[in-house]
Amino acid sequence: MFEPETVSDLEQLSEDECLQLLEQHDLGRIAIVVDGQPLIFPVNYGVSQRVITFRTAHGVKLSQAPGSNVAFEIDAYEASTRVGWSVLVQGVAVDATTALDDVSWMARGARPRPLAPGVKIHRLAIQPTKITGRRFRLNP
Amino acid sequence: MFEPETVSDLEQLSEDECLQLLEQHDLGRIAIVVDGQPLIFPVNYGVSQRVITFRTAHGVKLSQAPGSNVAFEIDAYEASTRVGWSVLVQGVAVDATTALDDVSWMARGARPRPLAPGVKIHRLAIQPTKITGRRFRLNP
Repeated sequence: MFEPETVSDLEQLSEDECLQLLEQHDLGRIAIVVDGQPLIFPVNYGVSQRVITFRTAHGVKLSQAPGSNVAFEIDAYEASTRVGWSVLVQGVAVDATTALDDVSWMARGARPRPLAPGVKIHRLAIQPTKITGRRFRLNP
Repeated sequence: MFEPETVSDLEQLSEDECLQLLEQHDLGRIAIVVDGQPLIFPVNYGVSQRVITFRTAHGVKLSQAPGSNVAFEIDAYEASTRVGWSVLVQGVAVDATTALDDVSWMARGARPRPLAPGVKIHRLAIQPTKITGRRFRLNP
């Protein structure tokens, strides 16, 4: 167990640092709320001008998410550098499959590549209201 | 991009398989809802008799989660085997720091080891209402 005195403090990341991390990765998790119950799904995503986007088939994400508040998160802990970090995007989900608004256009500029099987012809986007992140490094 | 025909179908995991995966890992994410906005936090967790538990300091998780619906998720994609999977636990959060109910007792039987810094003297538990999982294998 890591005792508090053996680690440096948590460092808050700027939005620019968070966006850099989002651009460098492609697997995250989205949380949506269905009838008061939050659900979390892993998704392969892309990011374009602050808009997170991913492809999906018909299902709970497509039927429940659009127009509602969602969260999106990525994180990693690299044992070699002893650095851990996470980025949290709060925002509103948009069905960007064919819509002509600015967010949907930006969403279609990203290139998410889903690994999981299935025909995912729809595109969901997250218009962020808040992007935060934190990082810590364990002392040797 | 992986086309649908190059992958096997998604396989639903039994609850026993989900519990095995939960026992074999220690980093997951919890989603809680604060004023209608879902939030996701990475946590180091332990599991004991279906109860997920993790340590936390004072903060949004401790102040908002107890008594409310939460989600907990773990996932992985192993490039060497081309197998991806995820497990989703839906349930209710319980402040198990000192409470004497059965869930709190089980929660204190687990040994979560938080990596992130800070004095985390409180213990949150998730009493599951539903545990589901899925797995896929990409064809060569």
